[in-house]
Amino acid sequence: MSWENAASISTLFSLEDITKVAKEPRKPNALTPVLALSAEARSKGYDLVCLPLTTEKWKKRWTEMCLLPSGVDSDADMAAEQRAEAWRAKPGFLLEEVTYNTARSRVGVALQQELAYASYLNIPTAILPPPRSREHVSSYARTIHACLKSSSYIHLSIRLPIYNPSVLEGRLTPMTSPSSSGGLLPGSPTPSTPRLVVPDDRRTETTSGNLDATWEMWDVIRSICDYNTRLSLTLDLTPPLPIKSSLLSKWKAEPIRHLFLPSSTFIANTKGYPVLPKGTQSFIRESMTASIFQAAMTSGTVENFAQGYQDYLQAPLQPLMDNLQSVTYQTFEQDPVKYHNYEEAIFQALVDWPGEEKIIMCVAGAGRGPLVARSLSAIERSGRDAFIYVVEKNPNAYITLQGRKEAEWGDKVTLLFGDMRFIEVPEKADILISELLGSFGDNELSPECLDGAMRFLKPDGISIPSSYTAHLAPLSSSKLYNEARAGKDDKSVETPYVVMFQAVNILSGDGGGTSGHCGPQIQECWEFEHPRRDAVVDERTGLPLTNSHNARSATMDFFIPHAGVLHGLAGYFEAVLYGNIGLSIHPHRKDRISKDMLSWFPLFFPFKDPLYLPSNSELKVSIWRLTNQRQVWYEWHAEAFLNILGAPPTDNDVVPSPRSASGNSFANGGPLFGSPVRSPSPFVDSNDPFDRRSFRNESLDAGGGSRLVKISQTSLHNPGGRSSWIGL
Amino acid sequence: MSWENAASISTLFSLEDITKVAKEPRKPNALTPVLALSAEARSKGYDLVCLPLTTEKWKKRWTEMCLLPSGVDSDADMAAEQRAEAWRAKPGFLLEEVTYNTARSRVGVALQQELAYASYLNIPTAILPPPRSREHVSSYARTIHACLKSSSYIHLSIRLPIYNPSVLEGRLTPMTSPSSSGGLLPGSPTPSTPRLVVPDDRRTETTSGNLDATWEMWDVIRSICDYNTRLSLTLDLTPPLPIKSSLLSKWKAEPIRHLFLPSSTFIANTKGYPVLPKGTQSFIRESMTASIFQAAMTSGTVENFAQGYQDYLQAPLQPLMDNLQSVTYQTFEQDPVKYHNYEEAIFQALVDWPGEEKIIMCVAGAGRGPLVARSLSAIERSGRDAFIYVVEKNPNAYITLQGRKEAEWGDKVTLLFGDMRFIEVPEKADILISELLGSFGDNELSPECLDGAMRFLKPDGISIPSSYTAHLAPLSSSKLYNEARAGKDDKSVETPYVVMFQAVNILSGDGGGTSGHCGPQIQECWEFEHPRRDAVVDERTGLPLTNSHNARSATMDFFIPHAGVLHGLAGYFEAVLYGNIGLSIHPHRKDRISKDMLSWFPLFFPFKDPLYLPSNSELKVSIWRLTNQRQVWYEWHAEAFLNILGAPPTDNDVVPSPRSASGNSFANGGPLFGSPVRSPSPFVDSNDPFDRRSFRNESLDAGGGSRLVKISQTSLHNPGGRSSWIGL
Repeated sequence: MSWENAASISTLFSLEDITKVAKEPRKPNALTPVLALSAEARSKGYDLVCLPLTTEKWKKRWTEMCLLPSGVDSDADMAAEQRAEAWRAKPGFLLEEVTYNTARSRVGVALQQELAYASYLNIPTAILPPPRSREHVSSYARTIHACLKSSSYIHLSIRLPIYNPSVLEGRLTPMTSPSSSGGLLPGSPTPSTPRLVVPDDRRTETTSGNLDATWEMWDVIRSICDYNTRLSLTLDLTPPLPIKSSLLSKWKAEPIRHLFLPSSTFIANTKGYPVLPKGTQSFIRESMTASIFQAAMTSGTVENFAQGYQDYLQAPLQPLMDNLQSVTYQTFEQDPVKYHNYEEAIFQALVDWPGEEKIIMCVAGAGRGPLVARSLSAIERSGRDAFIYVVEKNPNAYITLQGRKEAEWGDKVTLLFGDMRFIEVPEKADILISELLGSFGDNELSPECLDGAMRFLKPDGISIPSSYTAHLAPLSSSKLYNEARAGKDDKSVETPYVVMFQAVNILSGDGGGTSGHCGPQIQECWEFEHPRRDAVVDERTGLPLTNSHNARSATMDFFIPHAGVLHGLAGYFEAVLYGNIGLSIHPHRKDRISKDMLSWFPLFFPFKDPLYLPSNSELKVSIWRLTNQRQVWYEWHAEAFLNILGAPPTDNDVVPSPRSASGNSFANGGPLFGSPVRSPSPFVDSNDPFDRRSFRNESLDAGGGSRLVKISQTSLHNPGGRSSWIGL
Repeated sequence: MSWENAASISTLFSLEDITKVAKEPRKPNALTPVLALSAEARSKGYDLVCLPLTTEKWKKRWTEMCLLPSGVDSDADMAAEQRAEAWRAKPGFLLEEVTYNTARSRVGVALQQELAYASYLNIPTAILPPPRSREHVSSYARTIHACLKSSSYIHLSIRLPIYNPSVLEGRLTPMTSPSSSGGLLPGSPTPSTPRLVVPDDRRTETTSGNLDATWEMWDVIRSICDYNTRLSLTLDLTPPLPIKSSLLSKWKAEPIRHLFLPSSTFIANTKGYPVLPKGTQSFIRESMTASIFQAAMTSGTVENFAQGYQDYLQAPLQPLMDNLQSVTYQTFEQDPVKYHNYEEAIFQALVDWPGEEKIIMCVAGAGRGPLVARSLSAIERSGRDAFIYVVEKNPNAYITLQGRKEAEWGDKVTLLFGDMRFIEVPEKADILISELLGSFGDNELSPECLDGAMRFLKPDGISIPSSYTAHLAPLSSSKLYNEARAGKDDKSVETPYVVMFQAVNILSGDGGGTSGHCGPQIQECWEFEHPRRDAVVDERTGLPLTNSHNARSATMDFFIPHAGVLHGLAGYFEAVLYGNIGLSIHPHRKDRISKDMLSWFPLFFPFKDPLYLPSNSELKVSIWRLTNQRQVWYEWHAEAFLNILGAPPTDNDVVPSPRSASGNSFANGGPLFGSPVRSPSPFVDSNDPFDRRSFRNESLDAGGGSRLVKISQTSLHNPGGRSSWIGL
């Protein structure tokens, strides 16, 4: 594949390279060594060059001033301290201390001085060596943060090995750094041991936690730097990567700006040509988000349709409050899959409809009429006798509908102008067709609108769609976290967004987790059915007395196999149109149910503050769909737990909720906790706080005497719909 | 002891009590049953009454409407649902459904309806029963939050048992709720089992984690309610308390508004009189903060001196930037202990001074002269021949000094007006005396000021104080957290405050923790010495070339024995004046070194967001004292770890730093990580990120194959001194 548009290739010069050129005999007005090397690199087709900024001379002076003091020979220490103080007071390089010179700079202390010099030379990115040890990361990070604050535009990139290869040898030995000039700044030790063997999968499995070590360092650094957008990662791919790149998927959510590939990374293939190890190849392909990249080139795919929308936050539509623009309708009418499935569902319903008499159909919320056209062609295909009432509340779209009736539909349809919740329809329909679904299913108020439309659907009538479910998964994404908080006020971090995910990593895994109580990677929250079985309506108006039956709540437990940072929740929907015909954006099922459907990106529920989740932890997510007489809104919250093996059980132990969605059954839970949410009254909770439901003995035995310990929690997001709500 | 000023005693009426009175024959215009009972209670000397708001009739109707639906008999369910919807649409009590009536109210759904009715009756506090189970706490809490938002002034208090007594029986059985009318609202089941035995200490030790269970519930509730100030705790003391109330100290940091003591809490003493169990007694005494309370009555104590200052946040003084007011000097001159110790130190120094010739003394920063007076009396007592130069930069205080010289001191002193960092003094001093210490030792820039004063101290001269150290401990306090964020802008949560602690719990414990690497409960950060041994000064000015030698950094590991929420750090100082005479506000040492000293309250370093810490976790705190040419400021940060027993070691393992303060030794660490902080340069960190220093094998074996897993972190606070700094 071509990386042209995805990456630029740069070469790296070591101090040795530079010295070598410098030693060569040169004409009086020839280029400086570095400029000569750069010209050579450009001629070889490299886009960029990467080189150390300072020489051994500087390293030597600095070391003698600031590191060597022995603490025993106080005279020598004092002398060194005197030189150091003199330098601190008037810091600067000597000519022979830098590789690339056109002038001299004067700044604060070492790193600041080096970066200022780099900025002065208009170097776009300074690649910094990794911290010395996990123990010192916080001080290292604090210094990086200070440098970012003191410089206005230069980008800093931390060079980190993708993992500690020594763990693959099953013990903790110092790892080999890739090269003696592995960054803009000098100092990496030269390789001391030969190549490491590529791990077999079993080995990798058992030590998967080890792959988190360098990521954990990165997380401390970027957290202390408050996710600064000028801070990025230079991932050192010297250690051979395991084939199972799933273990490395966490890097997908991080701002990788450079991949570091010293020649030692390449191995000889059977023909003796240098190639990269398989695992490394596939990881690079993923880092380039090649999949998305290639798909984007293929027309008809979501990726192609959605170019430029990757990781871009959009406020969900409010079609009930706002009248959509014609261009918005046009965009969504482009979706062939969605309307094809609708036509099939309508066709099946018509074919299945008993009896011979005329079938009354109603398209509720027709927009510019795509479903009317599909209904008519379904009628024609089915050979049934049918008539369509077309309801639309948007006066502008209604004009388009009148045009189409005149030009295309004639007397096969009757147009009715008004809101489906209040309009009077001449006769009750056998089949009601609507397209009111949002990315999370109910988030564009399909349940509330169809409650109204039920007035003109016969008791035994069919609703297309007949049901839909909402699904959630915990995600990590530095990009989306920064996008969400870039909003002008705090509300922006408590608002669900429509987003096409790219630099996103789903943190949850399948399997029951260490406690055995966790659900699958993506879990169902709740369901809505039409027509409702339990409808209670006002005899006079035919409308529900309150909207409380459309409230929902769900608690889900997710297993987090690898350490990561929770930035939000990914929301998806799946709908049954009729029979076995549906629509789905559920990542595991969409290709089976509605491949290449374009109309919906997932929903993103952000969390105000990142929540760190260790390997093998469990995340309890609670989400509520709430309502009053004027609005509908979501509230969300999460708690993290960690399984402590071999610890004595205590009544802190928690049994995660059953993974089944709390759905719309009457059986489970009390008013506060069942679903749909019923009128809360505290006395239903005044029972024993330590009853068996919450502290079952099974939980204590789960995973062999292990128990869940609470380790952290988020705040409650969007209480009372203070930051985001959907207007009724 | 008397609780008069600390608490009011209220009595509780059950539904039975009310019914009984209602049944009695009454005169036509007699009081209603509740009013009659209240009058009786008042006559018996109770300050308040507590009673259920609704009757069994309401409970029955609500249960039938909203709980009973079976899910099997759909007709019955539908009928119930119809009644429920009708009530939700038009909610309200019937007369016989409330105990206390003067009118009727109409509000939303059950709890809201009940609270609105309570507000209507001007009831100040509604005590709510506990959540049904740990599993349902988040939904319970979300509902409480909604009620707080919808009501404007009524206080809500959650009744929680102080712990789950069943754990003391070594197994998990349902606990007995205290009473059938244990709150404003009905519904607690009646006691089903006899009294529980008071646990012996060993038992309590081993299950100490169990005592956290109800606290963990409370933490979820108040966190989801965002620490609402109208939300409080009603602690149910029915379960007998262990004598070791240290296990219960966490409650000290929580807003306990009521203690719930049903008659069943009392036991018969030897004489057969009802008394409370010993553990319960001592806990109540502490909840009443009786210690502070009594001390406050005793003059001469800090508590008495500081009445009204408990948990009140004060910005630290900036005596260098601001000229203090006379009243401020006066306040601090009231401290007998501080000046007594100073006089003793000066006296000792004079006595120890070799030779017979005249001793030159200098009081640097004399303010209104207290140290001058003490010096003169020390000279007199020592019988030595001495002369004092008095330096002061505050022009207003200088007037007072001139007055005292004229009236008291005469030619025993010479006054010099100016800043000790720049002023010229006629001759060099043998003994330099200053009082520039802040609550954290160096936080009022004593090190920087004395750097200047060293110009006029002889090389072999004595500085009083000769050294001082800063100390930290992690703390929890809902009160201080709310106080800090009450500030108008974000800066208020990144500013250290001077506070007299009251509703505060120190989270750390002694002992090495599960990893064996933790320091004591309160740990030393760093030290300053005068005169400095390693002084490097400009020959011309006699001043240091830079202030980098006064930068410091420290990393400390604290053991957290019991689950708690980290809200900030408590800062203390300890100073050596001369020989074995000192000043200290270190909680464990102050009474030995400077008992009843009044001048300093501790420093409080807040954290922006509360950090949950599980039982047996470890907290790594990093703090930096940083400086440029104009300012000095602190930055702080924390990471939490949990020990996973029996898990295989990985290179995620962390060895906490040695507990020794990083002090001012040259031996340890590189520029970034040693102390004093030296000029940072990245290449000293370019070594192997996985070297043995960070992943010693000892750590893996610590606690028998256990290892530390990172579980959470705070953000970096006050980077670059953006929110708070001290001006040079």
